[in-house]
Amino acid sequence: MSAKLNVGVIGLGRLGKVYLRDLATRIPETTVVAVADIDRTLAAGLADEFNVPKSYASGDDLIDDRRVEAVVIVSPTHAHRANVVAAVEAGKPTFCEKPPALTLAECAAMSSAVEKTGTFFQMGFMRRFDPGYAAAKEKIAQGVIGRPVVFKSSSRDPFRPSLEYANPASSGGIMVDMGIHDFDLARWFMGDVDTISASGAVLAYPEMASIGDIDNAIATLEFADGRLGVIDLTRNGVYGYDITTELLGDAGTLRIGYLRETPILTMTTNNVSHDTVPYFMERFERAYTIQLQNFAQNVLNQRAPAVTLDDGVEALRTALAATAAHHTRQRVKVSSIQ
Amino acid sequence: MSAKLNVGVIGLGRLGKVYLRDLATRIPETTVVAVADIDRTLAAGLADEFNVPKSYASGDDLIDDRRVEAVVIVSPTHAHRANVVAAVEAGKPTFCEKPPALTLAECAAMSSAVEKTGTFFQMGFMRRFDPGYAAAKEKIAQGVIGRPVVFKSSSRDPFRPSLEYANPASSGGIMVDMGIHDFDLARWFMGDVDTISASGAVLAYPEMASIGDIDNAIATLEFADGRLGVIDLTRNGVYGYDITTELLGDAGTLRIGYLRETPILTMTTNNVSHDTVPYFMERFERAYTIQLQNFAQNVLNQRAPAVTLDDGVEALRTALAATAAHHTRQRVKVSSIQ
Amino acid sequence: MSAKLNVGVIGLGRLGKVYLRDLATRIPETTVVAVADIDRTLAAGLADEFNVPKSYASGDDLIDDRRVEAVVIVSPTHAHRANVVAAVEAGKPTFCEKPPALTLAECAAMSSAVEKTGTFFQMGFMRRFDPGYAAAKEKIAQGVIGRPVVFKSSSRDPFRPSLEYANPASSGGIMVDMGIHDFDLARWFMGDVDTISASGAVLAYPEMASIGDIDNAIATLEFADGRLGVIDLTRNGVYGYDITTELLGDAGTLRIGYLRETPILTMTTNNVSHDTVPYFMERFERAYTIQLQNFAQNVLNQRAPAVTLDDGVEALRTALAATAAHHTRQRVKVSSIQ
Amino acid sequence: MSAKLNVGVIGLGRLGKVYLRDLATRIPETTVVAVADIDRTLAAGLADEFNVPKSYASGDDLIDDRRVEAVVIVSPTHAHRANVVAAVEAGKPTFCEKPPALTLAECAAMSSAVEKTGTFFQMGFMRRFDPGYAAAKEKIAQGVIGRPVVFKSSSRDPFRPSLEYANPASSGGIMVDMGIHDFDLARWFMGDVDTISASGAVLAYPEMASIGDIDNAIATLEFADGRLGVIDLTRNGVYGYDITTELLGDAGTLRIGYLRETPILTMTTNNVSHDTVPYFMERFERAYTIQLQNFAQNVLNQRAPAVTLDDGVEALRTALAATAAHHTRQRVKVSSIQ
Repeated sequence: MSAKLNVGVIGLGRLGKVYLRDLATRIPETTVVAVADIDRTLAAGLADEFNVPKSYASGDDLIDDRRVEAVVIVSPTHAHRANVVAAVEAGKPTFCEKPPALTLAECAAMSSAVEKTGTFFQMGFMRRFDPGYAAAKEKIAQGVIGRPVVFKSSSRDPFRPSLEYANPASSGGIMVDMGIHDFDLARWFMGDVDTISASGAVLAYPEMASIGDIDNAIATLEFADGRLGVIDLTRNGVYGYDITTELLGDAGTLRIGYLRETPILTMTTNNVSHDTVPYFMERFERAYTIQLQNFAQNVLNQRAPAVTLDDGVEALRTALAATAAHHTRQRVKVSSIQ
Repeated sequence: MSAKLNVGVIGLGRLGKVYLRDLATRIPETTVVAVADIDRTLAAGLADEFNVPKSYASGDDLIDDRRVEAVVIVSPTHAHRANVVAAVEAGKPTFCEKPPALTLAECAAMSSAVEKTGTFFQMGFMRRFDPGYAAAKEKIAQGVIGRPVVFKSSSRDPFRPSLEYANPASSGGIMVDMGIHDFDLARWFMGDVDTISASGAVLAYPEMASIGDIDNAIATLEFADGRLGVIDLTRNGVYGYDITTELLGDAGTLRIGYLRETPILTMTTNNVSHDTVPYFMERFERAYTIQLQNFAQNVLNQRAPAVTLDDGVEALRTALAATAAHHTRQRVKVSSIQ
Repeated sequence: MSAKLNVGVIGLGRLGKVYLRDLATRIPETTVVAVADIDRTLAAGLADEFNVPKSYASGDDLIDDRRVEAVVIVSPTHAHRANVVAAVEAGKPTFCEKPPALTLAECAAMSSAVEKTGTFFQMGFMRRFDPGYAAAKEKIAQGVIGRPVVFKSSSRDPFRPSLEYANPASSGGIMVDMGIHDFDLARWFMGDVDTISASGAVLAYPEMASIGDIDNAIATLEFADGRLGVIDLTRNGVYGYDITTELLGDAGTLRIGYLRETPILTMTTNNVSHDTVPYFMERFERAYTIQLQNFAQNVLNQRAPAVTLDDGVEALRTALAATAAHHTRQRVKVSSIQ
Repeated sequence: MSAKLNVGVIGLGRLGKVYLRDLATRIPETTVVAVADIDRTLAAGLADEFNVPKSYASGDDLIDDRRVEAVVIVSPTHAHRANVVAAVEAGKPTFCEKPPALTLAECAAMSSAVEKTGTFFQMGFMRRFDPGYAAAKEKIAQGVIGRPVVFKSSSRDPFRPSLEYANPASSGGIMVDMGIHDFDLARWFMGDVDTISASGAVLAYPEMASIGDIDNAIATLEFADGRLGVIDLTRNGVYGYDITTELLGDAGTLRIGYLRETPILTMTTNNVSHDTVPYFMERFERAYTIQLQNFAQNVLNQRAPAVTLDDGVEALRTALAATAAHHTRQRVKVSSIQ
């Protein structure tokens, strides 16, 4: 393996372009040697823009490229299984964006390939690399809040996605699409979830009903060791993109998140105001970069992945349990979701 | 009735003393003409301190006092029923601190007396009079956040109460003792609750198990019209007394609460810090005063009570439903609690 | 002297009423036994409202009242000298609102009377009793910021006062009227000021020129030991009443002040906003009460005054030096102002 | 000129490396075709790291390189004059980091070359490109605060620079080194400064006296049209890097700046705390990038420079006037500094 990691990027949508830019220009440890997208023109154009020598219309071709030493998969979720299995079977260290897949069956195929081949695989959950969340993890390890006993997390989108995007058939529904980040954080900070109960409804965008999804949800978690958690998700955080997590310990509390984007206060008659974080890229841009750099460093230094496929699978299982809890109006045991 | 309202105060514990001080010195509309407490010495001492002409060892005697035009009841919860029934049957406008009682049977007796006599009765829920909560109510009426669709509330005590105080036999347990304020706010902002699910546990103070109560709880509410709510309660908000409520609307969000008590920031190497709100009296002192003044004004001006006994009864019913949901691990219909 | 201090209040204007209320109802150590105001009807009405047995049309009569053990002077500034001299010559512990007077000649007469009689005298500078400022003083004593080396203070009124009030003939001009609080803080935290330079202008309210005053000013202080300070004053803090002070030390910084009055955030499309502190009474109500209580406790316990007449005189001298610096456009030695 | 701007970078110190990285990897409009530094090894190493085809030991050689279309000068201040004159005489659009020079004589030579040749020249003042400052400029143009009447700015370094760096012979002293940014902002927001008075002292680092500089300074500005300003500078902002500016208008106020770096609050017993901004690169990283991108876009689109050499010269003149005001203890007319 070379001193710098030669990476191929599969999938050049909104997030794929950001990953390409980061790998090509912001992460000293990586060189992008190939990109792939089913839109061949898009791939060629971006290859040109970022001085990437090769572009492909298929992930398989990219994986076959001998110069590609590691694969970053940002393709649509339904393609994850095929891309991941091909990449790890080719023995190429692989990074795959969340969620791992929409079904546990697909996950099983991916896990089996990763396990069988022993190829390095790192799951994408960028929040773990956000300086705020990373600081929280460290402070908890240092005992700053004692033992964390309650996990609270809130994810708010400033508007609903397009109905096409939001369709549960491709997005997995709100619990998977939005919630998987919070469920992953829950597991990261607190460990496995035992049972979930949930309530949800269409409250702000009646048209969400037409695709069979909801726009607001609340999920209550009981962790395996009896500790508690609660997650609320909304598509109508109309004031801005607001991601907040709290960890209540028996000796203190941590609160992660912030509300203001631009460092200016406007003060007029009896009013002080500021703007908000527009959307996820403004909030997590740095986390995305750190995450990919961490992937590259782990591969180059033969370290274990920071986030495993199993982390992805269990976060998905938890999100599916939350979905089931909402649908059945019953408390659901996460392990019952197979 | 005189221009100023001649009030008698029954119960001179921690909160009773504050009420006495407010009524005697801060509320221009009231004069305290009698106080009562089973601790006759305490009653006499406080009467002396606040220039109150009469002190009694029993609420009934105070109610019988002809100079007493209105009665403020801050006695222990188990005494509310007897005090309230006596006061309203005597035809004296009555204010009673929350909760109305610990059981719905007691409530029924009180309601029946209030209804039968038609005497003015106002329930104590001071948060409704806090400038933050009052501003929220007004802003919602003005349409600032559109239609509120999700209610979130969090109550955190900086430490656990004494086991004697916390004992569910007298406190009603965490859902009633702490939660009734949040359940009342939920009803005030959103209307009646249809069903509740809840999770709770002893997580910070193992000794709470010995009295049969928990120290952390999460309750999810489905309102009668399908909107959602979530309340979390903790006894281990060790950093300070932190009461936060959010109302998510389809056009905006309101957040009520604050973290800093003293207006000073201390900035040392890589650190900016401030103190916190110590406890409920610092947080709600002004709300308590405004609430009693509102009671007096309503009586003097023959206006309807701002908070009714029914509000108290329904908040209690909701809290009891939450308790049942926790105990049965089932979603509970609030109306099933009788 | 009785267990409670029998106080007489001279001057029942805006602030005088607040002092009367505090002394009559909020401060357990005091009883108000007499009030005086040249508006006899006002005095009689307020005496009635607060159960004060006597009301007078003149301060001298009040001072002569044998029941009056201590005198609180909130009369117009031009009357301070006469009231203070009479009160201390009568041997009655005296509190006088700032500024001590408008001229150093008047101050000299007052100082001479206080010195000659040895009567207890406490100067009013309520900011010293504000929990934020008091905490700052304590933290500095504890060494939290090391040695304070720069003092910064900013006073902003939300609107200009009436031209009648603001007239320098009676108000002393902006440096005295607004600035004396900041000059006192400067001295309290840092010690005597050696020289002052200043700039000022009419920038927001052209009509201020008609009374010979300015609406914005900046004063730079060099303390006797070489440390630095800067004060800015504005009448056009139109967003609200904003009083902020910073102490920069060689090991940290303290910042005193706050912006929000009501504990609520309103979050609408790309906007988070809150209200502001309306005016000085909302900001310093508690400080005023604590200050008077401190006066009463000092008298009752025969402790030294917390703020001396000399503090008042030196703050005035500093404010007059700032005024002179502005007028002469020269750096002025404070000690040269006699 | 090519579609992308081929840039050469002169000076590869701390800031030069950041500029190189930005121009090479973050600004789509630029390609770095040459770098120069008197440390030839450093230049060669960085050229290699950023795929820059040529490296030079002298700025002149870089300017002579025919592939170099535009020159970015980040060399030590004493080299600015020579580099700028050579670059503009070669007809190559030039960007030069602040300050333009340490003396007005050097500035005159540069201005004369820029004027004579008519070559595009843009001065570096990155704060103007910070989203907070840029938003302030825009809001003022929109009339949000009415007419700005007082300018306040505060620059705090978390520690003193090395004595070698801070030496006024090379840094220009605190008014030039730190203050030039604030003086530029003052001019940008308010226009030319007429007179300055200043106070300064060695208060935190006695060793600063050995190099003839001070560590704290306060400068009061009177603008040509009578409006006011005040700037305070400190080397002992030990809590963090804190840059705050306020614009007080006659209809509102803007406050630019922030205190927290990592989005996390730590809440322990009676304490809420967060970290601070470490240093200028964390605070202004984005502003630096935007500034260079703006330079490239202006050149490519033949737009006027966003910041002129004259802006640099006048900010320097103002800083020199502040230095003189401190030294002479007199109010200094800025135009008298030649």
